[in-house]
Amino acid sequence: MGRTSTARERLLDATGELMQSRGYGNLGVAEICARADVKKGSFYHFFESKQALTVEVVNAYWHGQRGCWTAELDGSDPALTRLQRLLAAMTTAQRHMKETSGTVDGCLLGNLALELSTQEPDVRARLEEIFDEQIDLVAAMLEDAAAEGSVPRDRATAATARAVVAQLEGMVLFAKLKNDPTVLDSLWPHTLLLLGAGRS
Amino acid sequence: MGRTSTARERLLDATGELMQSRGYGNLGVAEICARADVKKGSFYHFFESKQALTVEVVNAYWHGQRGCWTAELDGSDPALTRLQRLLAAMTTAQRHMKETSGTVDGCLLGNLALELSTQEPDVRARLEEIFDEQIDLVAAMLEDAAAEGSVPRDRATAATARAVVAQLEGMVLFAKLKNDPTVLDSLWPHTLLLLGAGRS
Repeated sequence: MGRTSTARERLLDATGELMQSRGYGNLGVAEICARADVKKGSFYHFFESKQALTVEVVNAYWHGQRGCWTAELDGSDPALTRLQRLLAAMTTAQRHMKETSGTVDGCLLGNLALELSTQEPDVRARLEEIFDEQIDLVAAMLEDAAAEGSVPRDRATAATARAVVAQLEGMVLFAKLKNDPTVLDSLWPHTLLLLGAGRS
Repeated sequence: MGRTSTARERLLDATGELMQSRGYGNLGVAEICARADVKKGSFYHFFESKQALTVEVVNAYWHGQRGCWTAELDGSDPALTRLQRLLAAMTTAQRHMKETSGTVDGCLLGNLALELSTQEPDVRARLEEIFDEQIDLVAAMLEDAAAEGSVPRDRATAATARAVVAQLEGMVLFAKLKNDPTVLDSLWPHTLLLLGAGRS
């Protein structure tokens, strides 16, 4: 049984690593199995399809990311300090990726949202839930910031929180396109502008 | 000769249509040839690779888009009116896509940037040039707006212009993910905030 569960985890890990840089369409089951050292015949024992596997990979990715999000956003610091810490952590992750692998691979969730959302309904639905959760986490920060007086009350909305996540995803797109994580250095001053909280 | 040039154009058109909704990795040369009604053997007479074809498709897409950009941005109206007109045109295009095909397919350039930029260097390089051109077009608008006094001088920068395009790409990602073009209705008030030019 130990062997069985390890094979499933190896398939998930291998797909996560390959999909982050290579996307979905360019990745075949045979290649995933080779990387995971799992026989191709076993693949469909664990996952009924590549789409089903991808939903699991997205879940595992967000499980790790959400741990980072809540760690950065929790605590007793002012809300804007916590939000800035989160965006700094996202920037650090892209910089670390560049240093270790040579490429800024961007955000797996954003990559798959643009590649897949008109094609694979199960992946799309899960991505939508996850982005909604991100927006809720940011919106809660904006509520706290409004209560602290650092953000105007009328900016503490879901629409503003979505604009903040959209700005993050758009700037990650440019960081990936230019393979340059320093693109993200302007993320915080622009976020403050979206919040009506300051000028860069 | 007429037949020859028509086949090349059909390959470009078919790829543009298929790639907008399906991405790059999920699309094979055989399928492109079937859609274009061109024999597979002829494909490599026109294009040395799928990557080479994709660069041409990106060029054709941006040729059309740039016509729209310059049409909306030209003229004697105030600079912010022209910029608003451009973003409204982008929103209308996504709404039109939803009405005609049922899906918000997003921006081909953004889709390919996230799917491909770590993999296909020629496509990546061309996409980087095109996004730089978009940023320059927006930056020119911001210069005009600063001269007109509608945007603070210190916001009329390439970094701000990039944030505006990033916000557009990020919101298009959400419109595509939710298959809902009304997501883009908040684009203009958020853009004004990035410009330090107003509050939504």
